[in-house]
Amino acid sequence: MKVGIADTTFARYDMASDAIDELKKRVSVDIARYTVPGIKDLPVASKKLIEEEDVDIVMAFGMPGPEDIDKRCADQASNGIINAQLMTNTHIVEVFVHEDEAEEKNLPEVAEGRARSHARNVIKLIKSPKKLIKDAGKGKREGYPDLGSIRR
Amino acid sequence: MKVGIADTTFARYDMASDAIDELKKRVSVDIARYTVPGIKDLPVASKKLIEEEDVDIVMAFGMPGPEDIDKRCADQASNGIINAQLMTNTHIVEVFVHEDEAEEKNLPEVAEGRARSHARNVIKLIKSPKKLIKDAGKGKREGYPDLGSIRR
Amino acid sequence: MKVGIADTTFARYDMASDAIDELKKRVSVDIARYTVPGIKDLPVASKKLIEEEDVDIVMAFGMPGPEDIDKRCADQASNGIINAQLMTNTHIVEVFVHEDEAEEKNLPEVAEGRARSHARNVIKLIKSPKKLIKDAGKGKREGYPDLGSIRR
Amino acid sequence: MKVGIADTTFARYDMASDAIDELKKRVSVDIARYTVPGIKDLPVASKKLIEEEDVDIVMAFGMPGPEDIDKRCADQASNGIINAQLMTNTHIVEVFVHEDEAEEKNLPEVAEGRARSHARNVIKLIKSPKKLIKDAGKGKREGYPDLGSIRR
Amino acid sequence: MKVGIADTTFARYDMASDAIDELKKRVSVDIARYTVPGIKDLPVASKKLIEEEDVDIVMAFGMPGPEDIDKRCADQASNGIINAQLMTNTHIVEVFVHEDEAEEKNLPEVAEGRARSHARNVIKLIKSPKKLIKDAGKGKREGYPDLGSIRR
Repeated sequence: MKVGIADTTFARYDMASDAIDELKKRVSVDIARYTVPGIKDLPVASKKLIEEEDVDIVMAFGMPGPEDIDKRCADQASNGIINAQLMTNTHIVEVFVHEDEAEEKNLPEVAEGRARSHARNVIKLIKSPKKLIKDAGKGKREGYPDLGSIRR
Repeated sequence: MKVGIADTTFARYDMASDAIDELKKRVSVDIARYTVPGIKDLPVASKKLIEEEDVDIVMAFGMPGPEDIDKRCADQASNGIINAQLMTNTHIVEVFVHEDEAEEKNLPEVAEGRARSHARNVIKLIKSPKKLIKDAGKGKREGYPDLGSIRR
Repeated sequence: MKVGIADTTFARYDMASDAIDELKKRVSVDIARYTVPGIKDLPVASKKLIEEEDVDIVMAFGMPGPEDIDKRCADQASNGIINAQLMTNTHIVEVFVHEDEAEEKNLPEVAEGRARSHARNVIKLIKSPKKLIKDAGKGKREGYPDLGSIRR
Repeated sequence: MKVGIADTTFARYDMASDAIDELKKRVSVDIARYTVPGIKDLPVASKKLIEEEDVDIVMAFGMPGPEDIDKRCADQASNGIINAQLMTNTHIVEVFVHEDEAEEKNLPEVAEGRARSHARNVIKLIKSPKKLIKDAGKGKREGYPDLGSIRR
Repeated sequence: MKVGIADTTFARYDMASDAIDELKKRVSVDIARYTVPGIKDLPVASKKLIEEEDVDIVMAFGMPGPEDIDKRCADQASNGIINAQLMTNTHIVEVFVHEDEAEEKNLPEVAEGRARSHARNVIKLIKSPKKLIKDAGKGKREGYPDLGSIRR
């Protein structure tokens, strides 16, 4: 199993290292890491990891700032990441933490939780996709407590 | 007839099971199910079902949360789903229920209704597309009562 | 001349029948009609009409509801319709009537007018594109009175 | 030099004729003109001019109305025009004048100025692209007075 | 190392010259410069630099104006730039300075800082991509002081 890791120097927390740690603790894995300046550089970095480094899946980490322009950049990056997946038939798991989604002092915990949680998702997607079916509709959240299913 | 089912662990209701039940009650059908973490993973999952599992059509189930970021994610997923259809000339019927489109206690009923209703649409699209023509312009709704045509 | 007609069961008025009537009154034409559930199913339906039914042009009819979510769906459909045209070098004339663009009692008249007007546009685009040049910049409107050119 | 001209019957001023006049006054040029109903028909018309009429460059003229829906249509057209350029490696110079960007009585002057100014840009892009370099960062505007560079 | 430089006559500051100066001070580099009228012309210009001038990477400079329409144009350009990267597997580093992101008198300093900073990023991306990994998550900013990592 080979995992591509794309992340940015713009982000204010190093989620990729948490994710790599989580992956290595759980499975035998090769890592190809590609750090780029900003969130809009992630789509092509992810696609290059897939097509030039032959990874099985990519995790793309970004931390959009709190301004409207940051949100718009994140949306553009997300669209690019979806397009890159469609062009390659390969998953790129987007792991974005918005600077304003929690108080600054709590952001590292959210970011680490999300990074590790998505690392576990990545392992399931590649190693045992059928395991995800039993969690379908279960209100899973990454970086926060699961919300669970809505009861009738 | 082989139907691809793509859904998420993020959703808080398992619409896919209702849809599979509805399909199996009505036609002889093979199912390929692919559960992914979130709504933005649905486009590539749907495309992989089409190109790697050779399904005739896909149903893509998602349940966006109530926040603005959730709406934006849903829009990005929708754009990706449309692109995936154009790349494959294959229908991917999007079945999204927004958490805030009804009171929480009523969501399961809306979600089940929409899932079953779109399962019936899927059967028509593959088995008898001409049957849909007689409902053109009839104000059909999935998960709610039909609105009907506007009268002069 | 073969015209593809893509429309929806979601719409609350059957514009396609008006357009087909207008086309048949004016030219010898074959029609391939493809009715789908919703507006977001129109892009792939249009592309399939072009590539699988070998039509010369497509008319895509939709009637977005009055809510914000309906507007967003219509925008996604429009983007998909533009992409489908670019992928096929074939016109797909979008004929959308928004439920809130007129009082409900007046919608059928707007919808019929727009459908018939665009049917005439379709004939010109295929049979005599040069005729459109003399109307360039003339403030033509479909479903409403023409606004005409702005005078100096 | 062959220039494609794509414009609409929706527009309320015939910018294309001004641009063609400006082109012909300055260079020996062949024109292929393609008038379509609305702004969303411009992307495929432009692409067809490039691929079926073998033009060197396209000018795409549109005049979006003042309503929100008109703005959204213009944005969709712009995205399509950018995609068409990427698919063909050919410039499509977008010349849009918004009906609400000036008082109605002043719109023809803005529109003519923008059309002629972009016609001159088109000549430079094809005949002498290096000439544009010396105007880089100079705050050029089409249809309005140039703003010039910002001084330190 | 060959760097493509795409910029505009619309911009009110010549960032490209600063970037070229920074590149030449630091590495042996060939430059291919392509100036276009506006920000929406940048995607195809960048793609042509990659495919026709055989550059290793592109820097795309734009300076969107303060109006809503300018922001929307910038967003469309950004989407096109991301698509061009995905189509070519080549980085196009977007260097946009918004006219309203600082007081006019301070804009040249921001613009020069951002241009030079991204020129250094470009060198790293091509010459020593591994060096960027040690800055991952460090809150780097271009044109402003770095924000640094968020501490637990």
